[in-house]
Amino acid sequence: MRISDFGGEAALINLIRERYGATGAGELALGIGDDAALIDIGGDLLIVTTDLLVEETHFRMDITEPYLLGWKSAAVNISDIAAMGGQPTYAFVSIGLPDIDVSVVESIYQGIHDANAAFGSVIAGGDTVASSAGIVINITQLGLVEREAAARRDGAKPGDAILVTNTLGDSRAGLELLLKLGLAGARRASAFCTERHLKPEPRVPEARAAVATGRVHSMMDLSDGLSSDLAKLCAASGVGARIYSEALPLSQDLHIAAARLDADPVALAASGGEDYELLITCDPRDAAAIIEAIASAGSTARAIGEIVDGDSALLVSLEGEEHPMPESWQHF
Amino acid sequence: MRISDFGGEAALINLIRERYGATGAGELALGIGDDAALIDIGGDLLIVTTDLLVEETHFRMDITEPYLLGWKSAAVNISDIAAMGGQPTYAFVSIGLPDIDVSVVESIYQGIHDANAAFGSVIAGGDTVASSAGIVINITQLGLVEREAAARRDGAKPGDAILVTNTLGDSRAGLELLLKLGLAGARRASAFCTERHLKPEPRVPEARAAVATGRVHSMMDLSDGLSSDLAKLCAASGVGARIYSEALPLSQDLHIAAARLDADPVALAASGGEDYELLITCDPRDAAAIIEAIASAGSTARAIGEIVDGDSALLVSLEGEEHPMPESWQHF
Repeated sequence: MRISDFGGEAALINLIRERYGATGAGELALGIGDDAALIDIGGDLLIVTTDLLVEETHFRMDITEPYLLGWKSAAVNISDIAAMGGQPTYAFVSIGLPDIDVSVVESIYQGIHDANAAFGSVIAGGDTVASSAGIVINITQLGLVEREAAARRDGAKPGDAILVTNTLGDSRAGLELLLKLGLAGARRASAFCTERHLKPEPRVPEARAAVATGRVHSMMDLSDGLSSDLAKLCAASGVGARIYSEALPLSQDLHIAAARLDADPVALAASGGEDYELLITCDPRDAAAIIEAIASAGSTARAIGEIVDGDSALLVSLEGEEHPMPESWQHF
Repeated sequence: MRISDFGGEAALINLIRERYGATGAGELALGIGDDAALIDIGGDLLIVTTDLLVEETHFRMDITEPYLLGWKSAAVNISDIAAMGGQPTYAFVSIGLPDIDVSVVESIYQGIHDANAAFGSVIAGGDTVASSAGIVINITQLGLVEREAAARRDGAKPGDAILVTNTLGDSRAGLELLLKLGLAGARRASAFCTERHLKPEPRVPEARAAVATGRVHSMMDLSDGLSSDLAKLCAASGVGARIYSEALPLSQDLHIAAARLDADPVALAASGGEDYELLITCDPRDAAAIIEAIASAGSTARAIGEIVDGDSALLVSLEGEEHPMPESWQHF
């Protein structure tokens, strides 16, 4: 049976986890299934995450720049470290390269280097190999988090407020503009949304500030889109969620880009993907303190809904209409 | 300038290391350039290594089996941990997959799982993604080594004996048979050499036993071939080497396979690649103790030459003829 008939990527990952993955036992405080693995090395916990990007599947060189490709490849991993409440430390960079211009390779590495430097990490090793299959980038990012600060997906409780940082949907709008108008055209249509897609900012100081309050129940970063990622958080925590559509933080740029794309800005925000913002749940009485901590780190945050009993995530309008959260885009 | 005109993979890696790599400072005891990075986490040192394999460039599905591909992908990383004298602990497995049969994916993971289990490691995380560019596998392997036992490439001293474990060249002969005769034909011609190529055994217990003697000056694993890897060890240590061609350990199977291939068995052993045996240097008075320790771990080892002043590695015949070590096969 082919992967596509088997239930796609998600079903395959479940199979792999159950059959071949380590359980969270011994030194392995947390195995496959969260944003990253947590390993007990005595003092702080070691965080490890890894991300594979394949040309044509995950990126296209005609709608990005080599430097931005490098930056984003590093940033998505750094975001996974932030999702655990951690500080990024070391990146290990594997790159498969066709026989392309050396300056392209240099720009990719410069982007990886700069994203690491911006968040306190360095390139500590890797593998550089030939590839007949286009550019392939795998980065494994290490980080550290204080034992008591480690944030996981499985701590959400009914009654929790659901917070997100900054705005959602910009990145997906940027992607749609890039696909429709190309790199130059997308930048003319919305420099902001295009930048949000091509050069995401991992929320490391925001995440560190949030966990330092000691009041975060669960946290993850939004990579696949609010709808898909919230479903994972709910499944891990054994809860449901209600998201208030009017509360979703939408940028002015998203409204303009959505009009240009003839798309619904709320749908882009609810299921767009690649936001790399933080999704946090906490006791509603602690929301203000966490929002204030995040503000001190330079970002806004707001409550967009609540954790409830059950197992489904609903999008609720001001009028009280309830819909299932829109489905996110799937590979395979 | 294209990579191929720039000096290929080696020149590119040097550029990347110098410009973007972290220096071995602070917690990073050893950065880019050895088999793996060493990170100071307080007690033991953390070892991190990563390896990227791209279909058609590094493997072909018509001359291997999915299980063996998985085994080898894990084994080459475990071998890098062994090269540092370490114990493998956790593997992080990124796989890019076309829409292939799920049973193929299961077999790949089973091989990765079994190689880890055989050497005391587990799969602790990873990334599973779609790929339009064939199968791509990146494994990042973690390990631990006692601070005083960590083996590096840069410790060889003039006068050192050079040891290798088991036999060399079998894997390259196996590869040549596979390319010439296909999987079934290669197995008929030499089951041993074919297995040595498709299912390498990382020398973890051997490496642990060797470093436990406290007498290893430098160590690495033979992945690119004796000639190429010895040149790296010499460059890192600032020394030269003399290898006695008659002392190279050749299996009976290699002699038979080489005759079948009309190839020189010494050349296959000296520059073949993918042996995944250990290359060790030590005071010649300690060679017997190290060979005995390796024997207790189940492998043979023998002296094949000596470290000398200078910067070149020579292959010396019984008659005293001296030649530069034959060049290894290069990507790009």
